[in-house]
Amino acid sequence: MTIQRAVARITCRNAPGIVACVARSLAAAGFDIRDSQQFEDVESDRFFMRVDFQGEARSRDEIARTLAECVDRFDMTIDLALRDRPKRVLLLASRTDHCLIDLIHRWRDGELVMEPIAIVSNHPHPGGSGGMLHGLPFHHLPVTPATRDAQEEAILHIAEAEGADLVVLARYMQILSDRMAAALAGRCINIHHSFLPGFKGARPYHQAHARGVKMIGATAHYVTADLDEGPIIAQDVTPITHADDPAELIRKGRDIERRVLARALRLDLEGRVLVNGSRTVIFQS
Amino acid sequence: MTIQRAVARITCRNAPGIVACVARSLAAAGFDIRDSQQFEDVESDRFFMRVDFQGEARSRDEIARTLAECVDRFDMTIDLALRDRPKRVLLLASRTDHCLIDLIHRWRDGELVMEPIAIVSNHPHPGGSGGMLHGLPFHHLPVTPATRDAQEEAILHIAEAEGADLVVLARYMQILSDRMAAALAGRCINIHHSFLPGFKGARPYHQAHARGVKMIGATAHYVTADLDEGPIIAQDVTPITHADDPAELIRKGRDIERRVLARALRLDLEGRVLVNGSRTVIFQS
Amino acid sequence: MTIQRAVARITCRNAPGIVACVARSLAAAGFDIRDSQQFEDVESDRFFMRVDFQGEARSRDEIARTLAECVDRFDMTIDLALRDRPKRVLLLASRTDHCLIDLIHRWRDGELVMEPIAIVSNHPHPGGSGGMLHGLPFHHLPVTPATRDAQEEAILHIAEAEGADLVVLARYMQILSDRMAAALAGRCINIHHSFLPGFKGARPYHQAHARGVKMIGATAHYVTADLDEGPIIAQDVTPITHADDPAELIRKGRDIERRVLARALRLDLEGRVLVNGSRTVIFQS
Amino acid sequence: MTIQRAVARITCRNAPGIVACVARSLAAAGFDIRDSQQFEDVESDRFFMRVDFQGEARSRDEIARTLAECVDRFDMTIDLALRDRPKRVLLLASRTDHCLIDLIHRWRDGELVMEPIAIVSNHPHPGGSGGMLHGLPFHHLPVTPATRDAQEEAILHIAEAEGADLVVLARYMQILSDRMAAALAGRCINIHHSFLPGFKGARPYHQAHARGVKMIGATAHYVTADLDEGPIIAQDVTPITHADDPAELIRKGRDIERRVLARALRLDLEGRVLVNGSRTVIFQS
Repeated sequence: MTIQRAVARITCRNAPGIVACVARSLAAAGFDIRDSQQFEDVESDRFFMRVDFQGEARSRDEIARTLAECVDRFDMTIDLALRDRPKRVLLLASRTDHCLIDLIHRWRDGELVMEPIAIVSNHPHPGGSGGMLHGLPFHHLPVTPATRDAQEEAILHIAEAEGADLVVLARYMQILSDRMAAALAGRCINIHHSFLPGFKGARPYHQAHARGVKMIGATAHYVTADLDEGPIIAQDVTPITHADDPAELIRKGRDIERRVLARALRLDLEGRVLVNGSRTVIFQS
Repeated sequence: MTIQRAVARITCRNAPGIVACVARSLAAAGFDIRDSQQFEDVESDRFFMRVDFQGEARSRDEIARTLAECVDRFDMTIDLALRDRPKRVLLLASRTDHCLIDLIHRWRDGELVMEPIAIVSNHPHPGGSGGMLHGLPFHHLPVTPATRDAQEEAILHIAEAEGADLVVLARYMQILSDRMAAALAGRCINIHHSFLPGFKGARPYHQAHARGVKMIGATAHYVTADLDEGPIIAQDVTPITHADDPAELIRKGRDIERRVLARALRLDLEGRVLVNGSRTVIFQS
Repeated sequence: MTIQRAVARITCRNAPGIVACVARSLAAAGFDIRDSQQFEDVESDRFFMRVDFQGEARSRDEIARTLAECVDRFDMTIDLALRDRPKRVLLLASRTDHCLIDLIHRWRDGELVMEPIAIVSNHPHPGGSGGMLHGLPFHHLPVTPATRDAQEEAILHIAEAEGADLVVLARYMQILSDRMAAALAGRCINIHHSFLPGFKGARPYHQAHARGVKMIGATAHYVTADLDEGPIIAQDVTPITHADDPAELIRKGRDIERRVLARALRLDLEGRVLVNGSRTVIFQS
Repeated sequence: MTIQRAVARITCRNAPGIVACVARSLAAAGFDIRDSQQFEDVESDRFFMRVDFQGEARSRDEIARTLAECVDRFDMTIDLALRDRPKRVLLLASRTDHCLIDLIHRWRDGELVMEPIAIVSNHPHPGGSGGMLHGLPFHHLPVTPATRDAQEEAILHIAEAEGADLVVLARYMQILSDRMAAALAGRCINIHHSFLPGFKGARPYHQAHARGVKMIGATAHYVTADLDEGPIIAQDVTPITHADDPAELIRKGRDIERRVLARALRLDLEGRVLVNGSRTVIFQS
């Protein structure tokens, strides 16, 4: 038996006694709660909880059994993640690689605890998988309207073959088919280069310039079939001026895109995000 | 003759030699340039300039004549403001008075250099013009759909009678008629309680909550006939969480609304805003 | 019996089972946990918890008894606050009243849930307790080096006579005597007009200007005998430029001072601050 | 003759007519002013100006002669930079390479217009000059207290041999000798990992944690013999919480360090920074 550290994300209908049930069950099985946060959504009458705990356990199943009584009693949905088994992540990119490179460096520096399994891009990358991409497997899968189905199939094949827990669209710039979006539902994060819901669709920086806004932003969200409408994980903005043309907005935007995507990915990897319909509950550290 | 301090806001078609013409003309007349900023809009081929200068002059006309040659040569539009003649401002408010009170205190503390001529509200204010409103004339002009025309007429009458240079909608919450919007065009600032262009229209905080955004904002803009579409002067945002219900968003929003409206008003009062079609050029200090 | 809503702030030595004990005890007594947050400080080996719960109870004592077993077992220090008994707050101000006025309006707008019992200032206020001060009792207690002891005695007398739970130095600008600081220890919040630990002491905006920093800030902290060294509750900054002279810094600083003091006061009033030696644990909503 | 784009940074004693002289001289020689900003420092009675202009010219000298009359008349110091001759930059780094890698990518993406001539580090870099370092010459110059003089000599030698206009300490982590600091005075930018003047000296994140501040920051400044006291170019902060231990502060700090150093470097490369004693004048775009 070894010390296991686990995070349980729990959702169920709101009711009295949930926190007590979880705390008592974990304590009875010898687990110590390191952190615990919860939220009642009065509107939807749903309850959300994140419990970070540790203790001796032989297996994931043994940990799961600890909470079985609460699960039954409150009809809970539980997602259980073990710290020594980081998520396996597939990275999708396109010509602009600033988000991709940023995520790779944050992973290398220990800020993002994940297992990047491969990179897929519809553009070749200078140097292939070497150098900047830290030797990660690199798949160049070009795409045209005519070949999109086959290309998406190839991406899904890589995701399945490598056991991807999460797919990150690091400025992938391709609109996913409904089939692809459905196949990745709940385990795919996208970065949109606007402060949603403003400037949906194509060329948001040009839209922002035309409207004359004084700040631009970026939004990281889970992908759903409904483009730019998925549950938002993180957003941020930066001030701009009348003197910034669209090219300058694109440059200033790169900084926010990097930051917002990295923040959203980190929140997901640490099990801090719970989806609540079209919104998210975020348990900050 | 006394020392006069003036700010000229200049717009014309772009051309070489504009800055030199203005600088030379002012120098020749004995004026010293304290600050000068300009911007060329490549897209519209327009030139924008703000010159802050001082020197001995008998009258506003004398100052204006100094720049007459440049005006002719470059077909300039010039707005000339003298520092010892602050703008006369009419404040419009409604039931929620946090923006109104904030503006009054900033004026009292010397942060907003203006002459508030009166307050109009469609709701009575506790204590009338006394106390919180610092003795400023207070007009309670209630409004219903049936009486809107007459009420707007009464407001315009006050504006005219008192020589208002600027009308500030400090959370006035009434949709102006097209006629009213036209009458105030170019001299009316509104604060909208969302980060435009997101969440136009009514109840933006409720919209923001429903969409699950992670930041809310406020936008100060000049009023045009097209609601929520006028040239933007200032914007800001503040982070929110899943735990914030619409009531809490309204509370958090009050802080941003106050700040953004005060910033926009100050920029206008200091002659730092030039309208460029549906956008603005802002010359920061 | 009526429904009571309470917040318990708990500190004790770290140990396994604390969360479970609290949750079980409250559940057994029929209380429902609305929110619960905890933090283990590995360095000091201390445990901090905030539990927001509700249920039927006859009295504060009855609620306290619910947790008696945990208190004994873990040697806890507990502070228990009932929602229907807001803190009684004494406000101290000086010539500049922007923080004072701001707090009063936030209280009036329902943002700060407290009972302001009186205002003390070493300067008279225009209009006395009327108007801007919303009729709150106003005590003008001027002070000179020679009369400081007596003046502080008078302030403490008001605090005691009115049962003040908290004293807020809303830009009070007087250095408290050690005796006064000791008398108010743990229940007095000050706003310092710099981003501590930078620019301690007098005239921080002048110091900031002289050093050429690019941002100024404000810090709200609990008062201790050691000036400007008390546990920090909230801080914020705002960008400045080379063109801002000290007078402009003072103006820009007013906005941050207001915001930071209001935020710190709200955190305290909601029982979200726990002191951890010379630092604070803040449980955000 | 080709079209030249140039930026002149001008400082002199304050006097009436400076702007007019510069504008007239440039116009007379056929140059068009694209942007012009100025600042009068009332305290020091100094005048600062940045003029961005273009026109036909055979050489740098020809451009310089254009302003000769003004230089004489106002006893100006002028620094003239031509856009087609970007600064040559030597990058110094140490074990942590996040700032170094970030600058390289911003250069590669066109955000930083410079010529990086070489990288010097007192630690080897994985992969040498290949891959992550984009093939830039990489010099591994280890240093100990005993060898510091020789190592600094070697760095200065590289700077001289390659004609470095600017040296950037991208988290170089070594304290420069006074001799070295003097040799690089005015052309060396450092990033300090605290919000100066708070937490000078070693291990600022540990200091910040110990003090319990609620925000950490970074400061980019010109290097002077007086450590951590050089003129500040850029600063920024990020919020932290009680739950952040020093290791987490270091991680959060990396984001600000990158951003602040990149911003400062960009300002310098675009000729937007003028030193004013121990402070800087920054002409933002």
